[in-house]
Formats: sequence, C-alpha cells, structure tokens
Amino acid sequence: MKPYNELSKEELRKLREELLADYEDAKKKGLKLDMSRGKPSPVQLDLAKDMLDTISSDSDINTENGFDCRNYGLMDGIPEAKRLIAEMMGVSADNVIVFGNASLPIMYDTVSRAMTHGVLGSTPWCKLDKVKFLCPVPGYDRHFAITEHFGIEMIHIPMLSTGPDMDMVEELVSKDAAVKGIWCVPKYSNPQGITYSEETVRRMAALKPAAEDFRIYWDNAYAVHHLYDDKQDEIPEMLSECEKAGNPDIVFEFCSTSKISYAGSGMAAMIASKANLEYIRQALTIQTIGHDKVNQLRHVRYFKNYDGIKAHMKKHAAVMRPKFEAVVATLEEELGGLEIGAWTKPRGGYFISFDAMEGCAKAIVAKCKEAGVVLTGAGATFPYGHDPKDSNIRIAPSYPSAKEMEMATELFVLCVKLVSVEKLLENK
Amino acid sequence: MKPYNELSKEELRKLREELLADYEDAKKKGLKLDMSRGKPSPVQLDLAKDMLDTISSDSDINTENGFDCRNYGLMDGIPEAKRLIAEMMGVSADNVIVFGNASLPIMYDTVSRAMTHGVLGSTPWCKLDKVKFLCPVPGYDRHFAITEHFGIEMIHIPMLSTGPDMDMVEELVSKDAAVKGIWCVPKYSNPQGITYSEETVRRMAALKPAAEDFRIYWDNAYAVHHLYDDKQDEIPEMLSECEKAGNPDIVFEFCSTSKISYAGSGMAAMIASKANLEYIRQALTIQTIGHDKVNQLRHVRYFKNYDGIKAHMKKHAAVMRPKFEAVVATLEEELGGLEIGAWTKPRGGYFISFDAMEGCAKAIVAKCKEAGVVLTGAGATFPYGHDPKDSNIRIAPSYPSAKEMEMATELFVLCVKLVSVEKLLENK
Repeated sequence: MKPYNELSKEELRKLREELLADYEDAKKKGLKLDMSRGKPSPVQLDLAKDMLDTISSDSDINTENGFDCRNYGLMDGIPEAKRLIAEMMGVSADNVIVFGNASLPIMYDTVSRAMTHGVLGSTPWCKLDKVKFLCPVPGYDRHFAITEHFGIEMIHIPMLSTGPDMDMVEELVSKDAAVKGIWCVPKYSNPQGITYSEETVRRMAALKPAAEDFRIYWDNAYAVHHLYDDKQDEIPEMLSECEKAGNPDIVFEFCSTSKISYAGSGMAAMIASKANLEYIRQALTIQTIGHDKVNQLRHVRYFKNYDGIKAHMKKHAAVMRPKFEAVVATLEEELGGLEIGAWTKPRGGYFISFDAMEGCAKAIVAKCKEAGVVLTGAGATFPYGHDPKDSNIRIAPSYPSAKEMEMATELFVLCVKLVSVEKLLENK
Repeated sequence: MKPYNELSKEELRKLREELLADYEDAKKKGLKLDMSRGKPSPVQLDLAKDMLDTISSDSDINTENGFDCRNYGLMDGIPEAKRLIAEMMGVSADNVIVFGNASLPIMYDTVSRAMTHGVLGSTPWCKLDKVKFLCPVPGYDRHFAITEHFGIEMIHIPMLSTGPDMDMVEELVSKDAAVKGIWCVPKYSNPQGITYSEETVRRMAALKPAAEDFRIYWDNAYAVHHLYDDKQDEIPEMLSECEKAGNPDIVFEFCSTSKISYAGSGMAAMIASKANLEYIRQALTIQTIGHDKVNQLRHVRYFKNYDGIKAHMKKHAAVMRPKFEAVVATLEEELGGLEIGAWTKPRGGYFISFDAMEGCAKAIVAKCKEAGVVLTGAGATFPYGHDPKDSNIRIAPSYPSAKEMEMATELFVLCVKLVSVEKLLENK
C-alpha cells in the first residue's frame, strides 16, 4: 500500500468510509482491555507464587547477622538483601540502602527531602526561587508528576536513539545553577525502550554541573528486564562511572523487584555514594524505625542470588516476548509503508512507544477508548501531560493476554488509520 | 526507712559507702540489658508466629473486591484492612487510609507534606517564618525528632494526671496562628502511661485554633494495649468528638499493629475526616502506587476482626504484665518513702515513667550504663533531648525477660539511691 499522504482526496474519502465501517464493527465486539499501565499480568505474578512459602512459622526468621526480622531495627535493610541488590546492580553492598515495597516512594522522598533539607547539606530547594529538572521526553509520567507536585520547572530534553540529547544536557547543566536534576531511565527506557549508549552514560557521569546539589535521578527500573536471551542491552555501571569521572556524589540510582517478584510487594533500593547515603540515613533515622524486613528476607530466601533473579527473569521474558512481538508484527503488517506512524522495537522493559502524525495522538486514544481499549492518556509521557506535537502514545503490552493484546493492537491500528485519514482530509 | 533528705550528713556518707560497695558488686555481674526502647520481646513476636502461614502459594490472593494483592493499585489500602482498622479504632472505614509497615513514616510524611504543600490547601509551612508545635512533656522522643528535623519550634506543655494542661493548650492554640499542631499519645501515653480524661479529650476536640491548618496529631499507638482484663482505660473516639464539636478536620489520628503483630512488619493507618483524607490521597497518588497489600491481607486473614485482635492482645498482656508489675514492685519496695523519686503505674502501653530528684536523671542513666543496663537517654522524653529539670527517665520493660527485668530494676534502684545520696551530700 502506498503512503497515505500520496492518496487523493477521493481515495482518502473512500478509505475513510471503509475504516469507519470496520470501526463500527470493532465497537460491536465489546472489547474491555487495559493497555494503560506497565502492570505485570497475573501469569507473571504467579511466576513468583512460591515466594509466599519461603517464610512460614517454622522458618528461621533471623538475618545472617542475628537480627529478628520481625522486630524494629536495621533501618537501611538486612545485610543479605543489600547484597542481593548489590549483585544485581553491579555495585558494593555498602552503596545500597534497601527500602520498602516500591521505588516510587524512594524517588518521591528523595525530591521531598531535597525540598525541605537540600542535598548533602545544600540550601533546601523550598528556599530557592526556582528549581528546574531536565526531563528527557517522552518519559515516565510518574517522574514528571513528582517534579510537578513540588513546583519544579521541567525542561524537555529530546530522546535520541542513544538516550537524552547530551549536547543540550551538558549545556543546561553546566550553565544554569537552578537545574538540580535530570530524570533518567537508562535501560529499556519508559516508554521507548531505548537503552542509553556507552557514550551517553559516560557523558552523563562526567557532567560538570553549575549546581553543587545537581543529581542524576537514575531510575534503573528495567535493569534485568530483557525480552531475549541473546539480544540484551547493557550499560556501564553508573556509580563507578561517576567515581571514575570524579563525580562520586552526582548520581542517585533507584531499582526494585516490583517487576521481578510482585508489583505491589516487592523490595526497592537506592544506590549512591557513601557520602550521599550517610546524609540520607540521618533523615531516615527520623522517618522510620525500619522497613519490612520479613519481606526482604522472603526475597533473599526465594531468589538466593543474582543467578536466581536471572533465571526468574527468563520466565518473565517468555511471557512478555510474544506480546511485544505481536504488537510490533501487527504494527508492521498494518501500518508499514503508510507513513502515518513510527514505533520502537524494544529488547526489554515494559513499553512500546508509538509516534502518530502530529495532532493525532489524543484522537487515537479517544477512538480506542470508545471501542473498549484503554491506552495511557495521550500526553502522559510529557511533563504536565502536554505533548507539544500531540503525537506520542505509550503502549503497555504486559497486562492483557497475548490473545487480548492481538485484538487490542488490531483495534489500535484501525484507529491510527482512521484518525490519520481524517487529519489528512482536513488538510487537503 | 525515713526520707533521704531527713538523713544527717554523717548518715548520708555512711549510706553512700554501702551503696558504692553494692554498686561495685553489681558491676561485677556483667549485666548486658537493654531497657531503652519500646521494643517487643521475641516471646511477643512469637505470639503472631502463625501469621506467616496465613498467606502461602495456594492462598486466594485476591481482596474481597477482586483485586490481586500482589499487583499495583488500591493505593489507600485493601477494603478488608480498612475495615479491620476501623473496627479496632471505632471509626468508619471511609475515614481510614491503610499505609505501610509502621505509623512513624505516616507521621513524618504528614508533617513533611505540610511543609511542602500545607494542610488542606493552606500555605506550605516552609513559606512561613515560624511554625510551632505544642509538645506535652514528657513525651515520645521520635515525635519531637520529627518536628525538630523540620525546624519547628517546640513548646513544652506539662502533662497532668488528666493529660496535657488544657488551659495552656487552649490559650496557645487560640492566640498564636504559628501554632500548627500538638503531639498527643492519648492512651497509655509514652512515657507515663497516662490516659487522657474524657474532659481533656473533649476540650482537645473543641479547640478553637487561630490557625486554620492547626491539627491534633493524635498518635493512638496503644489503643488496645491493655495490661489487665479488668482495669482498662478508655477514651472517647476522637474523630466523632471532633465532629460533634464542629471541628471535623482538626485531627489526624495514627495507629498501627506494630505492637500487635510485628514491630517491623505491621500494618499502619491514618484516620481523619474525608476532606483531610481526600487532600492526602492527592499527594499519595504522586508518592506511591500502593503499599504492601499482601501484608495487609496477611493481617486480615490472621486476626479476622477486632475480636481476634482483642484475644491476641490478652496474650501480649500476659507477657507484659509481670514485667510491669516487677518493676513497680521493686520501685515501691526499694524506693517507697525515700522521697528520691516518683513513678507511674500504667495500666497499659509500653513504658513506666520515673522522675528522679532534680539534676539526677543523667547521672542515674550513666551509672546504669556503666553497670551494663542501657536506659533511654535522659532528656530523650523532652524536645531537643533537653529535660530542664534533668529528672525524667523512661523505663521500657518490654524487651528483657521478666528475670532480666528484675535484675535491671534492682540495678536501677541502686543507681537512683546512689546518685540521690550524692546529690543530697552536694547540697548539705
């Protein structure tokens, strides 16, 4: 099929009639599918079903250094949990604090603490006139929600195939002391599934910020979330890169087992220099007497070590891969050559990113919703929920079954076609 | 024995010699006991041992409204957990948000949120020149640590046998708009074990604050933590008292199962008006995708309902009561009539409060430590760790065994005597 923009007005009108008829048929199917969030499917949660059996009433409930996990204490995590996270993330256990059930609250707290207490002794941000964050776009809506919540100005940084546009990042970070942070999902990024190139990681680690309290908020959420055994993206370990670049304190790294064990009952951690962690511990002492150590122990007993996690992630990949491939195959088959959209083919993570023709994303999402398929709101991948081109749509294939995913994607491509034709007709 | 202050210098000197000899003997015993924190003993933790068996791989892992507890969502708690907390606290489930494993982080977050976002739409406290909290003293060191951490000025309010001095509270709250809160442990208070009188509760609920964002931080930590079946303190349910007084939004109530199930892996909740909770939910949406719902389900399946909790608390009482009674008996036997100290006889909670002669608390705690018994630091029960009279000492009988508790208390009374004699000699 030739590109839509080469079709005549007449051809487009005829096409619209056909697509509208198909769309009416599709609506009659009464679909009710949710592709809006990066939520693991029940099948994935069941992969770790046996984790619930690892700690029972007859288990040894003590940590390896003899603390009863059920009691208060060990505010920064049990040693074996620190070690498990450290192994998985390629760092030393001394650079790890294990927190509660998810990493989002750690990121929120980290920004909140900076607002009220500064970063490693800097002026609290709430005392400053202006605080800015760099936001590679499209990006993760919950990151942007945190910075928006705290009144932090967000600056768009275009994502390239190698990661954020580092020329722009270097320029802004080195010249503007109000720039206090950058949100990064360095591996299998949300939503594009882009993995930062080695050069991007090294340039990021070597930034020369104007602000002493500038930090890279390195949300390594998909560090081990590959889709393939053979084609796996890797990035240099960030903390050591920062050390090598003479910037040991510049990064706060976040990770969790939310998409390894359970989304709601995982184990989350922060990785940073000892100086940063010492400062954070001072506040943590006020904030908590300790996170849930029984759940930490449960994780360690179940996964045992990084090899255990890797083996487990292969099972996740086996569930996720067919869904990703089904989406991409349908996109290619149905939209290939039409020049009405572009999409990514990630090798890991939780999302596929789709760029519609300018001004079409909202309409496509609305059309899908009308026919029973909920997508992430158009614009959500941009700060303030505003995509200036109204083009980007995040597809989250994890929750529906492969069969459902196929039906949902068929509807999606139909809506893309229909909205695109209407947009082209408008401009004819 | 007659009061120490009626002894002659000669008698005191002789007594000091005897006490010193006893103290040297005591040191040789090589005690190593910790009475510093309100930490449940292993025996208490074992009472809920079987809770770990309530959720296993073959359990139904869905909430009563069909949500998989292992997945994201239900940010403000699973319905059955809200109901359990509501039953226990005598409120409606609509007034409950269930959070994570402990209540301290909820209190921290509540103050932190007020700093950055105000309370129910008020000016963020970080934008104000001065924020003050009323602190009934002696009180809970971790409350004071939170307010100190955020630079909030703390004003001492004397604790009477009926609770905080309400004349003073009413005066300060109604006249000073910088007064934004009061820390309260209304039942079996920390450290005195005082339960607020009905009049105190009603006057508290009926406060007419100068500041719209004034809140009562009602830490009902020991709501069901009675020592006796027959002699139980009760207070009117606070939220409904506030409603009745026309102050529905004036209270934030906190509670947890930390000292019911597990200190480190409990379930904590906040109770407040729907307006307050709605405002907090807006921030929570940014902060978390949900707390650990599997652990919430574990609690509900184990305790089932409030009757289950009450039955369980009787088992705790059976463990705690002998320790409390041993401490009080030793204090009465050894110090009765000497007029060198006063102590409380709580009917619940986790602490006994001891008031030494002025200027003696630090020395007593140091003497105990030298002989192997760690007490809460003297002054800890006051804001900034400073007890103006250097008199109050918090005794936490929960963690040591009854036998250990006896040895520790014997050492304690010996140190009280010794330090008191030395103080009296100084002044002769």
